[in-house]
Amino acid sequence: MNFTGAHILSINQFQREDVDQVFAVADNMEPYALRKRATRVLEGAILGNMFFEASTRTRVSFGSAFNLLGGEVRETAGFENSALVKGESLQDTARVLSGFSDVICMRHPQIGSVADFASASRVPVLNGGDGANEHPTQALLDLYTIRKELAQKSRGIDGMSIAMIGDLRHGRTVHSLSKLLSLYTKVRVVLISPQELSLPEIIIESMRRSGVDVSESHELTQSIADVDIVYSTRIQEERFSSKQEADIYRGKFRLNQAVYTQYCQPNTVIMHPLPRDSRADANELDIDLDNNPNLAIFRQTDNGVLVRMALFALVLDVADKVDDFSSPVHWYNSRQS
Amino acid sequence: MNFTGAHILSINQFQREDVDQVFAVADNMEPYALRKRATRVLEGAILGNMFFEASTRTRVSFGSAFNLLGGEVRETAGFENSALVKGESLQDTARVLSGFSDVICMRHPQIGSVADFASASRVPVLNGGDGANEHPTQALLDLYTIRKELAQKSRGIDGMSIAMIGDLRHGRTVHSLSKLLSLYTKVRVVLISPQELSLPEIIIESMRRSGVDVSESHELTQSIADVDIVYSTRIQEERFSSKQEADIYRGKFRLNQAVYTQYCQPNTVIMHPLPRDSRADANELDIDLDNNPNLAIFRQTDNGVLVRMALFALVLDVADKVDDFSSPVHWYNSRQS
Amino acid sequence: MNFTGAHILSINQFQREDVDQVFAVADNMEPYALRKRATRVLEGAILGNMFFEASTRTRVSFGSAFNLLGGEVRETAGFENSALVKGESLQDTARVLSGFSDVICMRHPQIGSVADFASASRVPVLNGGDGANEHPTQALLDLYTIRKELAQKSRGIDGMSIAMIGDLRHGRTVHSLSKLLSLYTKVRVVLISPQELSLPEIIIESMRRSGVDVSESHELTQSIADVDIVYSTRIQEERFSSKQEADIYRGKFRLNQAVYTQYCQPNTVIMHPLPRDSRADANELDIDLDNNPNLAIFRQTDNGVLVRMALFALVLDVADKVDDFSSPVHWYNSRQS
Repeated sequence: MNFTGAHILSINQFQREDVDQVFAVADNMEPYALRKRATRVLEGAILGNMFFEASTRTRVSFGSAFNLLGGEVRETAGFENSALVKGESLQDTARVLSGFSDVICMRHPQIGSVADFASASRVPVLNGGDGANEHPTQALLDLYTIRKELAQKSRGIDGMSIAMIGDLRHGRTVHSLSKLLSLYTKVRVVLISPQELSLPEIIIESMRRSGVDVSESHELTQSIADVDIVYSTRIQEERFSSKQEADIYRGKFRLNQAVYTQYCQPNTVIMHPLPRDSRADANELDIDLDNNPNLAIFRQTDNGVLVRMALFALVLDVADKVDDFSSPVHWYNSRQS
Repeated sequence: MNFTGAHILSINQFQREDVDQVFAVADNMEPYALRKRATRVLEGAILGNMFFEASTRTRVSFGSAFNLLGGEVRETAGFENSALVKGESLQDTARVLSGFSDVICMRHPQIGSVADFASASRVPVLNGGDGANEHPTQALLDLYTIRKELAQKSRGIDGMSIAMIGDLRHGRTVHSLSKLLSLYTKVRVVLISPQELSLPEIIIESMRRSGVDVSESHELTQSIADVDIVYSTRIQEERFSSKQEADIYRGKFRLNQAVYTQYCQPNTVIMHPLPRDSRADANELDIDLDNNPNLAIFRQTDNGVLVRMALFALVLDVADKVDDFSSPVHWYNSRQS
Repeated sequence: MNFTGAHILSINQFQREDVDQVFAVADNMEPYALRKRATRVLEGAILGNMFFEASTRTRVSFGSAFNLLGGEVRETAGFENSALVKGESLQDTARVLSGFSDVICMRHPQIGSVADFASASRVPVLNGGDGANEHPTQALLDLYTIRKELAQKSRGIDGMSIAMIGDLRHGRTVHSLSKLLSLYTKVRVVLISPQELSLPEIIIESMRRSGVDVSESHELTQSIADVDIVYSTRIQEERFSSKQEADIYRGKFRLNQAVYTQYCQPNTVIMHPLPRDSRADANELDIDLDNNPNLAIFRQTDNGVLVRMALFALVLDVADKVDDFSSPVHWYNSRQS
């Protein structure tokens, strides 16, 4: 696709070559994310970081990515205060807000809302999550992480295997990642969830049509042997009709160091979209894994900055100018020490 | 008036020559708002964007205007969290916060609060709306829009006619715009509202004393013939004692393409302070007007950025230095395509 | 201590020479805080300004301090919206957020939380207040103010006397300031509070062991004679179990111009950590003191910017480079007029 001026709304927009392009640009962003150099390529540009649903981590990640390219960020967080409650349509909001910035990142609780918004926006819109629907930058950063982790073992995404664990029915990150994986060859996916929280059949069918080897399981330990990646997820209480309903499933598939040692291959990469629920009744990913070098969960969030920088650079067409506006960093850099 | 270091609190401060000055500076801001060039004239300056009442659109417009001049923005949104609830006076808040920034924009629900705040501030304060009282930048951007729209027809503000529609009793934008119009000659104003929501007599009298030709009507269709501008407004539920009371008036004067075609002159400019209420029971300005080239409502919000840039440049005395600190823009610009 | 890369969590970290160093750097920040010059030494750096408890004044002070050094600020305000409510541990939050910024300032209602957070952060963390525990930058700015005020009388901190007034039991600013004062010689402290709200014995003992001359009183007027500084504080309703309990103590020790004139030495400096409660039933520091040149309360908040700039410059190791990246200021500066 031609990224310049494009909206990034859905993982469905991406062909394999598009993903490759994003990842190549993301690789080039590393010196800036690591504060080896700074760039001012977007100096004077404004990101409208419009979060009509709260998400500290994603909001700050997008904002920091834009700052790292030299741009400014105007922001909103939360729904109640917006003109939307005065009866304004999303299209009107989009026309107004797109007059204030050069690119917009938007999160909104309603499925399809970001696409609606983008249809009336005069600047590129990046989907920061629209309810249970899409969160394309999360899927891209997950796949980028997989690529980087496997590259250390001289492996690629083609031919890899991954176990996805937890609430696969509601988890949009798993849905989007599944779609992305379909772009690659000889991928094997093991789905581990309670029966009621299985990955939707339509996604499974789509993966199979694309040549992905998909199997399902309702049990953890035997199913995580023999995969390259285990991708654990949180039971998202907010997607269930009640806390009681969510509680039925919470803590069903717990991964800790003992389970890992007994059942996983050595060097199996451990991923999670975060936040992980560390309360005793959930604890899907035990903190005793924190010293396990294969735990990639914080590398995922770090990679998110690279991927978001890449997307900003691509839609604003500065990917090849980033270095031209760069300069040394003068302050103490804890990342290099 | 001498803008340098001045507080901008009320439309009453403005003489015609002051308005002219703001508009001339606003015109010069267009290349920056359109991202044809960027300027760093306010690099190092800080705007304290203090919204003690929520308003995404106005808050982001002020913030973006300051960013476009190269400055930084520190912000607050919402009332509950502030020291005001711990019994701090607005004067104390002003003395403290004015130590943190070079200029402050403030919105507050209480009438007169921004002037109180300004009395103790050590830096210039711009009124971003104090309850039902004043919202001077809205009135200025409205008049700036009228000027620009009429200029395309080789007309000026002198001699123009406007129909103001809706809740004219509570609508502060209409109050402030009325005052501004009094600075011009041969202006004709048609007031269209329910009897109970008429424009306050004191404002009507003031306009008449200034030579404005004012007439009143409680009916829409016949009254919008023969004017240059129709200015529609929203029934502001939040200004009524109950939703029930507001509902009596909601949706009384609806303008849509059919009404426009049948009753308006061709090329009558359609304005609205936004947000418009697009819910079925309100719908004061139908979306079937969205393709009507005379619909100026989004040009109004775009113009708001220009007017706010102009006010910042004037109170900080950089209006004649903006171009000296300018540079080309390197990123993709959807506004020029 | 070696400031480079250090967390600033507690006043206990500071030796006298460390305080001296912070104050020397703060002195150098004055031209920038007064907008005589601007510096871009931290251009490209990002502050994560993470306020999981509301505090407009402290949050904006930290943010402005970072902007004045040329850096960008990403921010969060409020608790409910964060991943913490989804069961994420503070350590996880820290690892994620520290991937987005170069330094973090954090406020959190829970005692010890900022230290927990810092233990997992990959970048320096500044404590912006952790419940009733610590607020080290407040203590530093208070002492910096004392130093500056006394310097005008050719005096130093050694040998000075101060009366601390109000709720000395809960007031963390008083606790931290007491610790700092222990680093100096021949200091005399008069503690004035209701019996039930006395300064904790452990702090008094610690001061005495360090050679501070400490006396206690439950009465205001006689006890404020003969001191260099009166430091008044607010009854912090939020630290009591009920408003009723707080009300017992509210307004017990009121200082106004009449009391000042009758009981204080001329030129006794008046301080308060702010916000002061100006409601009639509290009014611990009457507004009739606002024209008293010895009222230093707004100089305190101004000094806060200097001290926070100094801490940022020290932990990021740019204290000696600030001037190298400086340039003149072009806009109207109300501070110099």
